[in-house]
Amino acid sequence: MRILGIDPGLARVGYGLVITEPMIHAQDYGVITTPSHQALAQRLVMLYGDVQTLLAQCQPDQVVIEKLFFYRMANTIIVAQARGVILLCLGQWGGPVIEYSPPQIKQALTGHGRATKLEMQAAVQRELGFEKLPQPDDAADGLALALTGWFFRHNSEL
Amino acid sequence: MRILGIDPGLARVGYGLVITEPMIHAQDYGVITTPSHQALAQRLVMLYGDVQTLLAQCQPDQVVIEKLFFYRMANTIIVAQARGVILLCLGQWGGPVIEYSPPQIKQALTGHGRATKLEMQAAVQRELGFEKLPQPDDAADGLALALTGWFFRHNSEL
Repeated sequence: MRILGIDPGLARVGYGLVITEPMIHAQDYGVITTPSHQALAQRLVMLYGDVQTLLAQCQPDQVVIEKLFFYRMANTIIVAQARGVILLCLGQWGGPVIEYSPPQIKQALTGHGRATKLEMQAAVQRELGFEKLPQPDDAADGLALALTGWFFRHNSEL
Repeated sequence: MRILGIDPGLARVGYGLVITEPMIHAQDYGVITTPSHQALAQRLVMLYGDVQTLLAQCQPDQVVIEKLFFYRMANTIIVAQARGVILLCLGQWGGPVIEYSPPQIKQALTGHGRATKLEMQAAVQRELGFEKLPQPDDAADGLALALTGWFFRHNSEL
């Protein structure tokens, strides 16, 4: 099974693709970026094209995307607008999409819902057999989402 | 000149097209809706197609869209996601887009930034020569945005 995790944003969208057979492993991960000097509408056009390309390249069986979480109001609005475009791509793609909140992702990967960023990265590293922490952070967040999708499938107690 | 006003939303997107010659008048107005029983991603797919169709039909020289305003947090997030898809359509269309905040729109149409909804509707009715208030409200909001674009072009004191 191919599970793609997407951590939404405007400037940076982290993604990670895991394949669950024969053992779960990271197939691909990275970050889609849009340039801050461009107008918002143009950045959304770029994001739309890049997420379509990502879906075509990854050929996922399932996509996991983070539920929107409030940091600061202005930033939340910007991320929400970008997230709308990513959800549009997922709607056009047409496959199954699951959303998890940050506490659910932390619970799935570390066993407690208030894990630190470092604990989360260590869990991604351990579960996927990386020698070093996967970088950049946004890509690790994408992999964490994909892993969460897998863990929720196989553990109804989460 | 053809000016299209768009009042963003997920369930209802109000729009109004005004033509400024020989006298300013409303050419078209209405509401794009998406059904609440559908999943968000599917509603965004519908919205994307309908806004593309609207732009193709209206052939605007300029689009005016409302800046996001905070009512309630949950609603703001939903509107922001839909607004991202509308901005994507505008970016793909490629023409000039201007954003105004609700106080700017009220100032332009009534001369004061805290006008009531009824005062706003009366201004739209008067400026565009409607015998009755244009309905539904969302369409009147779209016309108010288009009018605001026109007034700002012709009055640097606003």
